[in-house]
Amino acid sequence: MAIDIDPDRLFPVEPAVRSRARALYDSVADAPIVSPHGHVDPAILLDNRPFANAAELFITNDHYVTRLLHAAGIGLQDLGVAVREGDVAAADPREVWRHFCDHWSDFSGTASGGWLRTTFSEILRVDAEPSAAVADQLFEAIADRLWRPEYRPRALFERFRIEVLATTDDPLDDLAVHREIAGTAALSGRVIPTFRPDAYLDPTVPGWRERVERLTAGVAGDGYRAYLDALASRREHFLRHGAVSADHGTLSAEVTHLTEREAAALYDDARAGRIDAREAARFAAHMLLESARMSVEDGLVMTLHAGALRNHHTDTFRRFGPDTGHDIPVPVDFVRGLRPLLERYGTAPGFHLVLFGMDEATASRELAPLAGFYPSVYLGAPWWFLDAPDAMMRFRAAVTETAGFSRGSGFIDDTRSFLSIPVRHDTARRVDASFLARLVMEGRVTMTEAERVIRDSVGDQPRRVFKL
Amino acid sequence: MAIDIDPDRLFPVEPAVRSRARALYDSVADAPIVSPHGHVDPAILLDNRPFANAAELFITNDHYVTRLLHAAGIGLQDLGVAVREGDVAAADPREVWRHFCDHWSDFSGTASGGWLRTTFSEILRVDAEPSAAVADQLFEAIADRLWRPEYRPRALFERFRIEVLATTDDPLDDLAVHREIAGTAALSGRVIPTFRPDAYLDPTVPGWRERVERLTAGVAGDGYRAYLDALASRREHFLRHGAVSADHGTLSAEVTHLTEREAAALYDDARAGRIDAREAARFAAHMLLESARMSVEDGLVMTLHAGALRNHHTDTFRRFGPDTGHDIPVPVDFVRGLRPLLERYGTAPGFHLVLFGMDEATASRELAPLAGFYPSVYLGAPWWFLDAPDAMMRFRAAVTETAGFSRGSGFIDDTRSFLSIPVRHDTARRVDASFLARLVMEGRVTMTEAERVIRDSVGDQPRRVFKL
Amino acid sequence: MAIDIDPDRLFPVEPAVRSRARALYDSVADAPIVSPHGHVDPAILLDNRPFANAAELFITNDHYVTRLLHAAGIGLQDLGVAVREGDVAAADPREVWRHFCDHWSDFSGTASGGWLRTTFSEILRVDAEPSAAVADQLFEAIADRLWRPEYRPRALFERFRIEVLATTDDPLDDLAVHREIAGTAALSGRVIPTFRPDAYLDPTVPGWRERVERLTAGVAGDGYRAYLDALASRREHFLRHGAVSADHGTLSAEVTHLTEREAAALYDDARAGRIDAREAARFAAHMLLESARMSVEDGLVMTLHAGALRNHHTDTFRRFGPDTGHDIPVPVDFVRGLRPLLERYGTAPGFHLVLFGMDEATASRELAPLAGFYPSVYLGAPWWFLDAPDAMMRFRAAVTETAGFSRGSGFIDDTRSFLSIPVRHDTARRVDASFLARLVMEGRVTMTEAERVIRDSVGDQPRRVFKL
Repeated sequence: MAIDIDPDRLFPVEPAVRSRARALYDSVADAPIVSPHGHVDPAILLDNRPFANAAELFITNDHYVTRLLHAAGIGLQDLGVAVREGDVAAADPREVWRHFCDHWSDFSGTASGGWLRTTFSEILRVDAEPSAAVADQLFEAIADRLWRPEYRPRALFERFRIEVLATTDDPLDDLAVHREIAGTAALSGRVIPTFRPDAYLDPTVPGWRERVERLTAGVAGDGYRAYLDALASRREHFLRHGAVSADHGTLSAEVTHLTEREAAALYDDARAGRIDAREAARFAAHMLLESARMSVEDGLVMTLHAGALRNHHTDTFRRFGPDTGHDIPVPVDFVRGLRPLLERYGTAPGFHLVLFGMDEATASRELAPLAGFYPSVYLGAPWWFLDAPDAMMRFRAAVTETAGFSRGSGFIDDTRSFLSIPVRHDTARRVDASFLARLVMEGRVTMTEAERVIRDSVGDQPRRVFKL
Repeated sequence: MAIDIDPDRLFPVEPAVRSRARALYDSVADAPIVSPHGHVDPAILLDNRPFANAAELFITNDHYVTRLLHAAGIGLQDLGVAVREGDVAAADPREVWRHFCDHWSDFSGTASGGWLRTTFSEILRVDAEPSAAVADQLFEAIADRLWRPEYRPRALFERFRIEVLATTDDPLDDLAVHREIAGTAALSGRVIPTFRPDAYLDPTVPGWRERVERLTAGVAGDGYRAYLDALASRREHFLRHGAVSADHGTLSAEVTHLTEREAAALYDDARAGRIDAREAARFAAHMLLESARMSVEDGLVMTLHAGALRNHHTDTFRRFGPDTGHDIPVPVDFVRGLRPLLERYGTAPGFHLVLFGMDEATASRELAPLAGFYPSVYLGAPWWFLDAPDAMMRFRAAVTETAGFSRGSGFIDDTRSFLSIPVRHDTARRVDASFLARLVMEGRVTMTEAERVIRDSVGDQPRRVFKL
Repeated sequence: MAIDIDPDRLFPVEPAVRSRARALYDSVADAPIVSPHGHVDPAILLDNRPFANAAELFITNDHYVTRLLHAAGIGLQDLGVAVREGDVAAADPREVWRHFCDHWSDFSGTASGGWLRTTFSEILRVDAEPSAAVADQLFEAIADRLWRPEYRPRALFERFRIEVLATTDDPLDDLAVHREIAGTAALSGRVIPTFRPDAYLDPTVPGWRERVERLTAGVAGDGYRAYLDALASRREHFLRHGAVSADHGTLSAEVTHLTEREAAALYDDARAGRIDAREAARFAAHMLLESARMSVEDGLVMTLHAGALRNHHTDTFRRFGPDTGHDIPVPVDFVRGLRPLLERYGTAPGFHLVLFGMDEATASRELAPLAGFYPSVYLGAPWWFLDAPDAMMRFRAAVTETAGFSRGSGFIDDTRSFLSIPVRHDTARRVDASFLARLVMEGRVTMTEAERVIRDSVGDQPRRVFKL
């Protein structure tokens, strides 16, 4: 059976709304992609090697996909997910792909199913619906594409019309890859790093001591002050390499103010390995405040992704490591949690704080009211499980009446999957066009305003919010 | 005024979506009913006596109905609800029915109003809208139907095309009624029991000691181990009588792991009547874990209905007992609450855990992500207050993008009201058809996929999830 | 560019639904306005002076508007918001208005944008969209209107067809203004006071001691009992001046029962200034219970607005005072919080408790189930940030299936902005017509029922709930 991609997909069905949605979408469909936050490995753009195969490209490394196959009863080891103990052979990519094709029907109606289907058809131009019958044939057809020059990463980067692609990087990364990419002039768009310090801020993350040891190796002095200096210095390094933001991922959104004396004492305890979990969490919550202070000083946009309880199933974590599909959202209290930070820096000139959550109850209750008052606060686009058409539409409806359009971040794809980038941005544009078309037909915004809003949202808005 | 039942009821209004919804609905409208969880008294099917009268059938025993009449100012005693102290005469059913007819307009737009209206018209074929003017006439018309052979319980069971009807039963029930029904071959479908052990697991439930005394009377030994053996033995009894699931109703979803020594000590304290509320709650939370372990061992599907604060108004509870309309939902934390259980048994082969909640905020945040990873976790259908068209549609929209269709339980009617069973399943089929029709028209699933999904959802899905 | 006001604004787009929505709306479009809760200053109706200018009327005193301009980077001092230290000159109203016009596009899609646009066009009959280019011209055009006799407060009161307008007043207010208005017979509708005792009930509110000192100055005796007598006496004063309700605004919905001895001891501590924050909160939570008791006794309807964390940004509060745009909603637990109150008074004859919240998660989970059982509990209309078309529609969909239409309060505008009153009521009528039209087209209510419901909701329902 052929994949049937509807050119009017995701538009509301009512004809008058649909025609306006289509017109709004058409006005931005070909706009360049601004992607200020994501997880693509920049080395693929430097090396420009062909992607390996369909399984590695679409299944094994995408925990949105492996999780649904795991729920369907396929073990992660059979999907090629790296096993920590060395004694198990890697899964054959063809077998992995067959599992996926066998279970394609489980992806009906899901966000991942939507991305994959459109990517197969629109990006790879393979047009058969996955099924057990055509699994091998599809695997070959995709392999055939991947070896062609026009499917190498750089060619796709150009085809996708990417203006800016931000990666997410370890604070101690020397950013040589980014430097080399910038030096080659082989790409018409920019590839910029993002400072992601969580593992250096939170003493409960395994390996914190060793990491901080390395971080502070090159700075003068010792103790908490030297640690802050080292962080500031790495941020400076990132800024010199084009970084525009520092990204933080936390379980709660709780921020704590410690005096320098308290913070220094906890830091010393943590370095000495004599800190307990509770004190470590207080230190980490204080370091969010310090990150905000540094952002006020050096201008890096602060992004905060809050509310994922990581590695819910410990046995799977032990066997397969993190990012294996069992990070589960929990409620978040942005209002009281972030208050110490917003009290201090919420109105600081030039400070930008982009908030991302997965607790939909907070959208109208907390996020929109905060962004509707604090000049620093921006509404991050729907994220992770909510990065899907219906959820995106609920988000727009939940926040717009309180915060308008101007307090949004523009769309953020946050993806590891390079090939899905255009499809994701296309989806966001279709959903925004659909939301706006309804407001137009309900007499709430004029078509002229709607055109301005959607044009802004794909270009000037993310450029402005992320200081690009 | 005549009841006007629209054959296109509950379908979306836009004509293109409506015609697809109708086609999808038509493909399953006459499918047999699989009802793996509910509260019908099996004795009605054994005795096959006529239902008594309209008041007893539709008002007095349905706390969804009595609650709205209570809110309108009618005392429960005037609705025939049993008064605990013996000194009040039972209400006259005709008077009860008149109260209901007087207040019929208060049911406009409610789920109960919808069930009743459609049941009056489609099942009983009485076609006048209730009102003070026609109350007595309606009462007679219904009485006339109820005494006809075709309105006796078994005839209706056949007319409803029930394939499986699960009841909910006390662990010490000898299941003689079920055995006799199975023996008579008078029904073309199965009537199976469900093991419901709450009152034996939670020492805070009044009567726990006496109940556990009886439970353990027949087993060897004493203490906690004998108690576990007795529970396992009763589950075995239920399995031999066709049970497929064990049902649990809890305030929170909190599960606690106790060592056997701790559990045994708390058990002894509880038996001796020297346990406090907090320790009793810990023991009950531990017994959820033990129930899961038993399900892993004996294969009974575990269902968990979490988040109802029972008997909110103590004075009403004292006068009229439980299930009198003031069980109110509270927030539930499935993610942290169930973690100890899912850590141990979440990936156990063959284990099925069906989760039901009334806290809509958890649907996209917690339930869909859990069901999208754990092979054991299934999304229970919208339950209780959420078992209504708009709420069901919100549920589908909230979970499908993350978990797809395959992680659902199929529809669960969970009803005490035998006559409403076909109307409830019909509503679910209409809502699912409507949801799918929208996705089809938005280019998100093909009509072929939609047909497969809806067919599965009314038959193979509940059979698979409940091991029927 | 001219403001384009669609006569079908806010109606659903599908033509069959839209035509029914329009018919339902038309049946109530001209009904008089019953406004049982709001914040209009009654003195404007007594003095009947012209409104000063566009900035004062629409910007400076409306914290919904100033907050969005603040988020856009305009300081509150530049918007005319009173600065506490006397050393800053007040902003020029023309400059304030220019800031607003410069940022008009930030109001696209917001509730405030909708009110303003419709008010400019329909009430003031100025038809240019605000923009930097026309700012001064608009300011003049509005000034021109405001000086005409037909735009003075009393003329507008008549034009708006206001039947009842409730204000919100300090318990020690002598209500002379209300008495004089009632005496003049200059208005065809009633202007009635509302008893708002928060600042006298909660010892954590600054100035509580002085206020209670004044409150109890005129009553015999001393201590807690005299304090209760003084409150009851002021309620009596309000009742004599036509008040129908007592309004309470709280952070949580927590109610605590204290014995008279405990309450009296805490009261003495609070009066002596030796109470800590925790004990003060317990006393305030107890006084909610006392307010309910007084309502049971004297018949004042109790309204409760719960869940706003006031003055989130302390520095802004210090500089500009309260109600400056940074009150942010937090989660509320109505079920456990209100239980002590509902246990005692939930079924008390004649007691009316109208609940307002901004935590949408509670609508289907808590509010509708409570209102669907307790005869005293009514669902307050969507409030504050939720007082906007999409949010109102979500609220209707969330509560109706559980509680029906009869448990609602009717629309409450809760506004300080006199000129926006008709637009707000008009919006509510359009949204209700749209919600009902969908139910009609889905075969869930008949057109006859829908006509009854919407007629009731704008007239008899608020009259009944607020005992007007």
